[in-house]
Amino acid sequence: MISGLRPANGRPLGRRLVLGLHGQRCQLHYDGRNRVSNFWIPTGGITKKPMEGSNEDANDLLIRGGFLRQAYSGIFHLLPLGLRVQDKLERLIDKHMRSLGASKVSLSSISAQELWEKSGRLTEGSGSEKNQMFRFHDRKNARFLLAPTHEEEITSLVGSLTTSYKTRKYRDETRPRQGLLRGREFIMKDLYTFDYNVPEALKTYKLVKHAYTQLFEELKIPYLVAAADSGNMGGSLSHEFHFISPKGEDRVVSCSHCDHVYNEELADGKTHQFKESEGQSTVPGFQTEDAQVGGGATVSNGMWMAISHDGNTLLRGWYPKYSMQEGSSEPVERHVNSHAVKAIAEAAGVDLDLSVENPKAKWAAHVRSRSSSQKRRILDLYDSQVRVYQRPPLSDLLQEVGCSAADVEYSKLDRFPGTSNQLSLVRVHDGDNCSQCADGSLTSNPAVELGHTFHLGTRYSEVLQASVSVNQAVLDGSAESSAKSSKEQIVPMQMGCHGIGVSRMISAVANRLADSKGLNWPRVIAPYEVAIIPNKGLNSVAEQIYDSLTSKSVDTLLDDRDKGMGWKLGDADLIGYPVNVVVGNGWKKNQMLEVQCRRLGVKKDVSMDDLPAFVEGLLSQL
Amino acid sequence: MISGLRPANGRPLGRRLVLGLHGQRCQLHYDGRNRVSNFWIPTGGITKKPMEGSNEDANDLLIRGGFLRQAYSGIFHLLPLGLRVQDKLERLIDKHMRSLGASKVSLSSISAQELWEKSGRLTEGSGSEKNQMFRFHDRKNARFLLAPTHEEEITSLVGSLTTSYKTRKYRDETRPRQGLLRGREFIMKDLYTFDYNVPEALKTYKLVKHAYTQLFEELKIPYLVAAADSGNMGGSLSHEFHFISPKGEDRVVSCSHCDHVYNEELADGKTHQFKESEGQSTVPGFQTEDAQVGGGATVSNGMWMAISHDGNTLLRGWYPKYSMQEGSSEPVERHVNSHAVKAIAEAAGVDLDLSVENPKAKWAAHVRSRSSSQKRRILDLYDSQVRVYQRPPLSDLLQEVGCSAADVEYSKLDRFPGTSNQLSLVRVHDGDNCSQCADGSLTSNPAVELGHTFHLGTRYSEVLQASVSVNQAVLDGSAESSAKSSKEQIVPMQMGCHGIGVSRMISAVANRLADSKGLNWPRVIAPYEVAIIPNKGLNSVAEQIYDSLTSKSVDTLLDDRDKGMGWKLGDADLIGYPVNVVVGNGWKKNQMLEVQCRRLGVKKDVSMDDLPAFVEGLLSQL
Repeated sequence: MISGLRPANGRPLGRRLVLGLHGQRCQLHYDGRNRVSNFWIPTGGITKKPMEGSNEDANDLLIRGGFLRQAYSGIFHLLPLGLRVQDKLERLIDKHMRSLGASKVSLSSISAQELWEKSGRLTEGSGSEKNQMFRFHDRKNARFLLAPTHEEEITSLVGSLTTSYKTRKYRDETRPRQGLLRGREFIMKDLYTFDYNVPEALKTYKLVKHAYTQLFEELKIPYLVAAADSGNMGGSLSHEFHFISPKGEDRVVSCSHCDHVYNEELADGKTHQFKESEGQSTVPGFQTEDAQVGGGATVSNGMWMAISHDGNTLLRGWYPKYSMQEGSSEPVERHVNSHAVKAIAEAAGVDLDLSVENPKAKWAAHVRSRSSSQKRRILDLYDSQVRVYQRPPLSDLLQEVGCSAADVEYSKLDRFPGTSNQLSLVRVHDGDNCSQCADGSLTSNPAVELGHTFHLGTRYSEVLQASVSVNQAVLDGSAESSAKSSKEQIVPMQMGCHGIGVSRMISAVANRLADSKGLNWPRVIAPYEVAIIPNKGLNSVAEQIYDSLTSKSVDTLLDDRDKGMGWKLGDADLIGYPVNVVVGNGWKKNQMLEVQCRRLGVKKDVSMDDLPAFVEGLLSQL
Repeated sequence: MISGLRPANGRPLGRRLVLGLHGQRCQLHYDGRNRVSNFWIPTGGITKKPMEGSNEDANDLLIRGGFLRQAYSGIFHLLPLGLRVQDKLERLIDKHMRSLGASKVSLSSISAQELWEKSGRLTEGSGSEKNQMFRFHDRKNARFLLAPTHEEEITSLVGSLTTSYKTRKYRDETRPRQGLLRGREFIMKDLYTFDYNVPEALKTYKLVKHAYTQLFEELKIPYLVAAADSGNMGGSLSHEFHFISPKGEDRVVSCSHCDHVYNEELADGKTHQFKESEGQSTVPGFQTEDAQVGGGATVSNGMWMAISHDGNTLLRGWYPKYSMQEGSSEPVERHVNSHAVKAIAEAAGVDLDLSVENPKAKWAAHVRSRSSSQKRRILDLYDSQVRVYQRPPLSDLLQEVGCSAADVEYSKLDRFPGTSNQLSLVRVHDGDNCSQCADGSLTSNPAVELGHTFHLGTRYSEVLQASVSVNQAVLDGSAESSAKSSKEQIVPMQMGCHGIGVSRMISAVANRLADSKGLNWPRVIAPYEVAIIPNKGLNSVAEQIYDSLTSKSVDTLLDDRDKGMGWKLGDADLIGYPVNVVVGNGWKKNQMLEVQCRRLGVKKDVSMDDLPAFVEGLLSQL
């Protein structure tokens, strides 16, 4: 699979294949060395380099570099380079999961719809999740689906295997090769943990979080561990592992001083003051028009609307659209955090539908329809940074809709229901003060989620009957001595669910480290650690270098293609090997090799003897 | 995940986890050693040992031994032991594919129905293949299917990547993790090859067949390489790799003397005499009732019927139901080979439908229906071993059906259409003479197909437009010197498709080597090569042995569970480690270890010093 390769210089070849190329015949080497000629990398000629100034993102680079090919929208074939990266990443994950004592299993990607009905995930919920599943029938009309995740199957498996055992802790890593969700098809590495009570489950949770941290450390790319909302997974305690990325769909807020890091989605709508005494009323109540409450000065207010799922309640959020920030003379524009508003509304008994684009129009239609006898409602929320209107501007709205104040039930909130916390409706702006420490200021970054840890509790184990019989004394965590005399009790297992997105990690790493010349890979998942790039006629020197590096366990590739040096260097930059060793003019002149490492900005002449140590020194930083 | 394990003897532990068991607390070791306590093997308590005399097959053993668990009919989850076997088998396949210079890719398991319509496989054919595919729509109503195989996708991929290249040979291994076919879900390792002309493709074919042979040699289990019918794959040249197995769905015929081995399905209905002079007419024609033709004496004739797809033709095959065989005084009962009859009928222009259970009744109904003006047909075939009736018994049949001889067109055949070969309608019986050599006798065995090699030609590359531009001189294989002056021509690539069934191989190996005590694994795919089984109180000696074996790269497992020796030995026999090392009474008495190898019938006391060499000696035979 290589062009114009000359025969090896007298070395014995393990096997030869003849291949035709451009009407010539040449020989393919199988001497056990990793040669580009033996390896299918359809680079270069495939896609033309983009025009100057056009935006090529990492995904384009992955395709142009020959890592993958798009088959259909959201569905990719992995070519050899991409498969190598993926295999290395999977091995890295395996290593850290083994350190936890996790056992690896492979669960079928086919699951019965019935099982998902039992857990409620096929029938409940917003519909977005269930609509994203591919369902089908077999010839006997049994109903299956392509499982996007495996909580149901693993719980059912562990449940079925545990009945004859007593209290045990299981650690099971699933490897659903081809799950389907959102991006259609992707690979996840999931870890499911089962414990017999909450304290044990939380110990396990801590260990898993530590192992994930170690794993991300090995990639040597800055990451954030954020407290997270566990969404529809049904749990309470959870963390997310993020890379900061302009392409990220999440926003992660972090403090410059303390370890306060969280996903913006987690905002609960409460103000959390770290200082006790702020001279404010500690009893819930309105401070109308006569007091400016806490924080920086609001320059102008904004109003933001949403409507309840039943269409009956129009919510208006009053927030500081522009406000001053400490240390800055320019006002900053603020945006509503819809997650925070939704949380406040929920606590007030209103279920917001954030997907409605024009809430006012929908509410107006509802008012006019007179479809129910229920009185229409308006609920005003006031951010702690804005003045509460004693008489909020209502008439315009009512006039527009065509009803009178008497037709509408009006209420307002400036405290979080059931607490004395004031409301926070806005998203964090860079430079805001941290609510957890005295000294920090916050930063908000777009981020891409790559891993998560969830404590799930008994959400699945109860409905799918994965229970264990435990000694009551053990369950209580009481003294061992009394254990034997206590009663056995059957309890559902406490489950944890932890996952790393393999496919997504590949593209996130590519994105994070790509520059104008091409991709860049961290050593631990690079398709090869070092590429040796010889000029024409220097193949035997290149083989010597290859052997000296591989003898030190460096994962090396030899670019033995019959192409010019410039073409090969450009190709190596595009693919993003951590280190390139150039065997060119320097060798011819004074037997020196040029070692290039784009990521560290290194370009240095090194002798053959010094090469292994020098290369290892670079790799240890990557 | 282990019971009652005592703390390690002063060795530093990498990490500890506390787990509850039977109301006690014990510690889990993570010292880097492979310990059963760290590994999820739900054996023993899961399924009770079967009753004396009941039949437990290898699949039952795989389940009872904790290798896999059935999720749904035909759909399995792989537990850690099973996943280890599968990983090793995949690595073995990878190794031999790399020796071919094959590059590994991972193709999506989702494929567009449109692509399969182009190749005709979704619309043509008997219907059994297309009905076995799971199809579904996405939310935009694009039509997909779960690809059971990847000829379409790889051809389309190679085609799309090759346009900008010239003549090239691609070798691409796909790894469809979860294809679906027949047994619902299985893993295949496929190799697709692309060449620019037939001679090159046949060279490639030979190399692949050689690599497959090497691979099967490493399993050290007898196998057969049979010439095969390539079924609906559309090719001509193909071979199958089989294990002989009473559970096999194929029958493979092999000669005791020469290399004539073939799948019974390949029978073409011709007699193939290796001797020229048999005293027979060399001109096609009937020898009626006055001559017994060749072979052993027929004791009594049988008659076998089939009907054409259009229902118009009733075929009767006259064959030797009982005949004498050389060297035996008892007549042997013979059976019709329906593949042979179908081949003869096809050559005579009749398309048989072998799925009809009662051909006579169907033909009678057709005769009575008078649905078409076409004259009803009866076609009689005569095996070379039976006398041809001058007046075959027809009247009973016609009377039964209710028509006269005039209503029916009658014809008979005793030669293969277009040749002078006589007909062979029967299946090979053990002891029949080989048709390829003078000295061999044939054996027919049930067998399970584990691998295949196919030369596909341009079946897919033509319709999916995977073409290359080749120099005419290269295409013709003519001299290199003239190549440059010749014209370029665009030709569809010659494709080969080669596969090994990974899931199926695991169960076939299990079947082949299981005995009454449990499973047995060949060294190369055993979950572990050696299990060390210490008696209580001997864990530290066991650790010493573990370290000495692993230092010699022996893949070792330490059964450190707090169970009795009998239980652990029974469990090891069930799981089928190639070699067990027992640290028990022999150690206490005189520091000797008992090495057990059930497959080789070895049970021997060995000293600690001699152990590594002795174990390696056993493993090299397994």
